[in-house]
Amino acid sequence: MADEVEQGRDLDRVAAFSDGVFAIAITVLVLTLDFPKFGAARPIDEILDGLWKPVLTYFLSFYVIGVYWFAHHRMWHFIHRIDSTFIALNMLLLSFVAIMPFPTDLLGDYGDTGQATIIYAVTVAATGLASVAVWWYAARENRLTKRDMPEGFRSRMIVRGLVAPVVFLVSIPVAIFDPDLAKLCWLLVIPVRIATMRNYGNVYEM
Amino acid sequence: MADEVEQGRDLDRVAAFSDGVFAIAITVLVLTLDFPKFGAARPIDEILDGLWKPVLTYFLSFYVIGVYWFAHHRMWHFIHRIDSTFIALNMLLLSFVAIMPFPTDLLGDYGDTGQATIIYAVTVAATGLASVAVWWYAARENRLTKRDMPEGFRSRMIVRGLVAPVVFLVSIPVAIFDPDLAKLCWLLVIPVRIATMRNYGNVYEM
Amino acid sequence: MADEVEQGRDLDRVAAFSDGVFAIAITVLVLTLDFPKFGAARPIDEILDGLWKPVLTYFLSFYVIGVYWFAHHRMWHFIHRIDSTFIALNMLLLSFVAIMPFPTDLLGDYGDTGQATIIYAVTVAATGLASVAVWWYAARENRLTKRDMPEGFRSRMIVRGLVAPVVFLVSIPVAIFDPDLAKLCWLLVIPVRIATMRNYGNVYEM
Amino acid sequence: MADEVEQGRDLDRVAAFSDGVFAIAITVLVLTLDFPKFGAARPIDEILDGLWKPVLTYFLSFYVIGVYWFAHHRMWHFIHRIDSTFIALNMLLLSFVAIMPFPTDLLGDYGDTGQATIIYAVTVAATGLASVAVWWYAARENRLTKRDMPEGFRSRMIVRGLVAPVVFLVSIPVAIFDPDLAKLCWLLVIPVRIATMRNYGNVYEM
Repeated sequence: MADEVEQGRDLDRVAAFSDGVFAIAITVLVLTLDFPKFGAARPIDEILDGLWKPVLTYFLSFYVIGVYWFAHHRMWHFIHRIDSTFIALNMLLLSFVAIMPFPTDLLGDYGDTGQATIIYAVTVAATGLASVAVWWYAARENRLTKRDMPEGFRSRMIVRGLVAPVVFLVSIPVAIFDPDLAKLCWLLVIPVRIATMRNYGNVYEM
Repeated sequence: MADEVEQGRDLDRVAAFSDGVFAIAITVLVLTLDFPKFGAARPIDEILDGLWKPVLTYFLSFYVIGVYWFAHHRMWHFIHRIDSTFIALNMLLLSFVAIMPFPTDLLGDYGDTGQATIIYAVTVAATGLASVAVWWYAARENRLTKRDMPEGFRSRMIVRGLVAPVVFLVSIPVAIFDPDLAKLCWLLVIPVRIATMRNYGNVYEM
Repeated sequence: MADEVEQGRDLDRVAAFSDGVFAIAITVLVLTLDFPKFGAARPIDEILDGLWKPVLTYFLSFYVIGVYWFAHHRMWHFIHRIDSTFIALNMLLLSFVAIMPFPTDLLGDYGDTGQATIIYAVTVAATGLASVAVWWYAARENRLTKRDMPEGFRSRMIVRGLVAPVVFLVSIPVAIFDPDLAKLCWLLVIPVRIATMRNYGNVYEM
Repeated sequence: MADEVEQGRDLDRVAAFSDGVFAIAITVLVLTLDFPKFGAARPIDEILDGLWKPVLTYFLSFYVIGVYWFAHHRMWHFIHRIDSTFIALNMLLLSFVAIMPFPTDLLGDYGDTGQATIIYAVTVAATGLASVAVWWYAARENRLTKRDMPEGFRSRMIVRGLVAPVVFLVSIPVAIFDPDLAKLCWLLVIPVRIATMRNYGNVYEM
């Protein structure tokens, strides 16, 4: 009933809303850096001493949200219509993206505890699973996707999307015994992602 | 006087501004999660102890703002021009949406008190009533809406839009005597919304 | 040299950036409401006692930023190209808009002092003057504006744009003697704005 | 494979995401102004005493982010396609932009220390170098840029882009001995930028 142009505008608004949440969540990460309040109440050395871990965690979460945003962006390239279930799943994904600054703050300040490490890993894994769920729902039997998707794109998106959740879920039992080893596990995401990537010189094929 | 294309761009800017406020308000909700300040000044167990209620409240408010955003999005689909009164009503709606993080924070931290419960319910109801007012103003006698709206869409939007305000207003006297029972009342929104929904496989009919 | 379509996209990006700053500033206002930190550390009654003034101030600033956003939006309707000076003036305007949450917070918490009242009035006046400067630069001899502007629109935008700065500047000496009387002065904006408004049923004429 | 229109929409989404991060980072700067918490707990004079340096730093960082945003905007004007490396470099740039509020806050509160001055200078320099890297990657041998770029635009963008990083890097050893002198060095950016600017009356040539 709605013509194609209208669908285009509606799609764009949902994309813009999603981009907005991604952009805000990624920028709010800076608030985890323990802004000094009311001027020089504490010596600056005390502030700087505790700074390296929060800063590292800031860049880690910036990378994580950036990767999820890029996956969303790439997925959206092949979406040509939306329905209520898609929007609900997308909101679920966004609710995990938007909460990321909190586990980031916990990890930056309490990174040596198992609790903070597990909460961070759970959040990253949940975000990744929600991201895969959005794509799986949209792409299954071309429900909401364009017909001109490159061969194998659908399944490769799912395989690549599962890399981070699997790695972070595996790190959870590790974190109970050794939080630092769990963090080393996370680095596995990078080589595995590179190994599963095929670069045809076009961002929208993987 | 202004041609149709210009109206399109102006409409899009108001929509983008509204989407921005919705997206920022929904993402700022994370700041209600009591970020620990200045590293490990308090033991992590103390922080985690108080965490479940704020996290639940976070998802509740994410859902509430998400539902109002989606109603706004669906309404906008049938708006074809705007005037000053519409923009003023829309700003009133946005002022309630943007304040949501505050009652969310109150409810997360003081959820067992009648005061926090009532303030939350009042805010959700006010947002819903403002949302209905925007639509009522726009759709009355097709003042600002497109002529090709599906039959009955106008009134169904109003009926569905009133579900949340009525439920939350009813919960206010309940909250004076039993704040937890008031929160159970809120859950009524979900079955009532589902009962009033008709799904034609198209997001823009209900 | 750049074709019209390109100018359109560039204009849209500057508009979107400006809208973003307006939308974020207006939403960040909620952070002035003294979010309780770390759960129920203070009794809720103590929090609510101090709440009415910050909430009133929140709505005041929401209205102020909203009015300036709408003026910006209306102005933009008639801009058809931009240059470096325009962008610099626009950034100056945005820097005042973005700082609004701070005087808002001061006014909400220290509204009975002359200092907070004056800082608020100065910020609102500076924002208004920057807004007029942007328009004056763009519209003078049709430097950046479209030729099909309605007769008298240029000067009426300036007259209306000066209402708030004049009223808030006048309130500054008043605030030295009586901060509450200064706030009453601010209300003059509303009748004067209405008196200078002409409503032709089209948002883009005044 | 993807047609030109699709590339246009994808480009626009990356631009919009980048604009979002710039707009949010620039607006979050206001949070460095030490919002008073819980009403009049401290006398207003104490708050105002410490205010001038944070306010000056706010406008400095607003200017810095504004200049980088404008460079990004101007660069984008000549981008006609994107690839994964470009997006990765752009994300690196955005991660430095988004962190700016933190060194801004440090500088506002601890501006008389060498540490805060150096951290600020390092951040500004890193942001500038990332900005140049994005452009260098895109424009080298017209990899991602349009063919109708004005003669010399490519190299002038790089030269102008290096002004701020060079000045801020040079200020670092100075800051070890005299933090205030280092800040005076920063002012060199303005005359050097003006000297390297050529204004043809068109924003997109420099």
